[in-house]
Amino acid sequence: MQDPRVARLARILVRYSIAARSRQTVGVTGGSAAEPLIAAVYEELLRAGAFPVVRMQPADLTERLFRNGKPHHFTTLIPFQRAYARCMDATIRIAAEVNTRGLSSADPRREARLFRTLKPVGDALRRKPWVLTLYPTAAYAQDAEMSLREFEDLVYGATFADMRDPVSAWRALRRRQARLIARLRGADKIRIVGPDTDIRMSVRNRTFINSDGRHNMPSGEIFTGPVAGSVEGHIRYDAAVCHRGREIDGIRLVFRKGVVVEASAAKNEKFLQAMLDTDPGARRVGELGIGTNTGIRRFTKNILFDEKIGGTVHLALGKAYPETGGRNQSAVHWDMIKDLRRDGALYVDGKVFQKNGTFKT
Amino acid sequence: MQDPRVARLARILVRYSIAARSRQTVGVTGGSAAEPLIAAVYEELLRAGAFPVVRMQPADLTERLFRNGKPHHFTTLIPFQRAYARCMDATIRIAAEVNTRGLSSADPRREARLFRTLKPVGDALRRKPWVLTLYPTAAYAQDAEMSLREFEDLVYGATFADMRDPVSAWRALRRRQARLIARLRGADKIRIVGPDTDIRMSVRNRTFINSDGRHNMPSGEIFTGPVAGSVEGHIRYDAAVCHRGREIDGIRLVFRKGVVVEASAAKNEKFLQAMLDTDPGARRVGELGIGTNTGIRRFTKNILFDEKIGGTVHLALGKAYPETGGRNQSAVHWDMIKDLRRDGALYVDGKVFQKNGTFKT
Repeated sequence: MQDPRVARLARILVRYSIAARSRQTVGVTGGSAAEPLIAAVYEELLRAGAFPVVRMQPADLTERLFRNGKPHHFTTLIPFQRAYARCMDATIRIAAEVNTRGLSSADPRREARLFRTLKPVGDALRRKPWVLTLYPTAAYAQDAEMSLREFEDLVYGATFADMRDPVSAWRALRRRQARLIARLRGADKIRIVGPDTDIRMSVRNRTFINSDGRHNMPSGEIFTGPVAGSVEGHIRYDAAVCHRGREIDGIRLVFRKGVVVEASAAKNEKFLQAMLDTDPGARRVGELGIGTNTGIRRFTKNILFDEKIGGTVHLALGKAYPETGGRNQSAVHWDMIKDLRRDGALYVDGKVFQKNGTFKT
Repeated sequence: MQDPRVARLARILVRYSIAARSRQTVGVTGGSAAEPLIAAVYEELLRAGAFPVVRMQPADLTERLFRNGKPHHFTTLIPFQRAYARCMDATIRIAAEVNTRGLSSADPRREARLFRTLKPVGDALRRKPWVLTLYPTAAYAQDAEMSLREFEDLVYGATFADMRDPVSAWRALRRRQARLIARLRGADKIRIVGPDTDIRMSVRNRTFINSDGRHNMPSGEIFTGPVAGSVEGHIRYDAAVCHRGREIDGIRLVFRKGVVVEASAAKNEKFLQAMLDTDPGARRVGELGIGTNTGIRRFTKNILFDEKIGGTVHLALGKAYPETGGRNQSAVHWDMIKDLRRDGALYVDGKVFQKNGTFKT
């Protein structure tokens, strides 16, 4: 018998995250390892009356592209891609990698080109309901240094798929986050301090968004787009991240007038540099996020989970979410996480907002 | 290590069947059981410079549709389907069922409705290069009463994927078939006789097509569309077929003035009747095919193979291939096979063309 949490996660995605309606066309994409969840989402969409368009991909498709693709495969947006973006009323993407390091030796400049090429499609799809989730695979469990069973518990716990009434739980989280956002109304100066970290930025006239599981599943963060040019200082990120098929660790960035002027990494620094050179926006912050999900406690090396950990903050290089007021248009969006749970703090206009991972009330 | 015949079949499909060219967009669809072949086709398309669009489907997708779909799922052609047909320059479809009887209890009228709905898309795609093949699964092996390894040998043997130079082998088959077609030039009256079978039809002014592995892989048949209204007589088909998730056996049809006036089946007769009622064309013959592939000797219950067996003929109810001159526009196309290898014969204008499975020279 199939794990009943799979069908429950499918229901959360279809009924809560994108709130599919009858006769909508909904695109479902994901690697073949996610087949049980993809099939459950397909069924739930049918029950909601929507038209599912399933595009499951063989495992390692991107690796195969990098190994066999010709230059034009990285620079051409084919009409089908635009038609897909036009025809979908909503999209559900399911990450299900079988090897998170498969692109370790791929050329990062080719990757940057590919992301630039695909950007218009991603932008168009993000103007309609969309959600990104993850299906637990052995590869993700390995990164998290867990057994697959333990990692499944983490995923279904963090998404509330192990609860009887997950939708109510997501609504409660939304209310908690709304109270944090209310306290940030009118805020201007943000300062983040911690070991080897002291960085300031302005969020004046920007909007904090309540990330309540509609675009990311799981979620549990509030975020905004800082004022371009206001970021000053240095930050050493704590958590290693797997980004686009590589592990990058020990990232340290120095910002002057909003721009990264120094960047180093203990591991895969060359990839970091190539990503920074993708376009001008890639050297600027696009997002400040504040994690609130206390159901996730351990780093997993997977950004979808790590950035939500209660007690952490993250600054993303690149693209801003326009609904925040941020204007960064980069093809890159790379979240990097700072853990404030030990000797860290976040100040808002000089007052403690969060210290050592705990929100001040 | 992967079976090297998988990559060779991929090469046949890409380089020979659809002859993909650089910058063409090629759709690849198939069930998840075909993942090794789908991935190999994806790579070969990239190497050919084409843009692959992969739409792998979870196993049992159609069963899930019948179980969960609402009426509008069977009657609505969504804009995405038309866009897909428009954007593809060629398509490769890979059958890979994990259970060939999954639709045994589905409502055949709902199925007929679905096929009618999807017909414009299939028609549009068939106006461009397309090929249908099969990936060996345990379900197909089970139908053929073979082990999976034996069935793999049958598939890769019939497709020439076990040869060093499969493309030359397909070209040689094309030449052999061209000689048969030359002998049929100007032919009018066809008569097929055998146990409980005596049926006549006219192929006057119709074109015989050389099915040489470009649309079906494997292939090995020549076919035409008989003159509507000319089919007279009765036929008892020999081989059980699995058609759309059911096994149908012991089909017997009586034709008057081209129309099926009596139809019975030893197994699943109700489904047969529902298919005949799909539309007016479903009661008329759309195709007469003559199998030539002597590399396939045993019935497998799979039409893609069985209709190619050297020594058999098949009459398809429903849609004609317009390139033959046939005009049947039905949403149905159902091949039924008559084995002439024992006490059977095919006469052309009164002369023996094939007897007991052997072509007369």
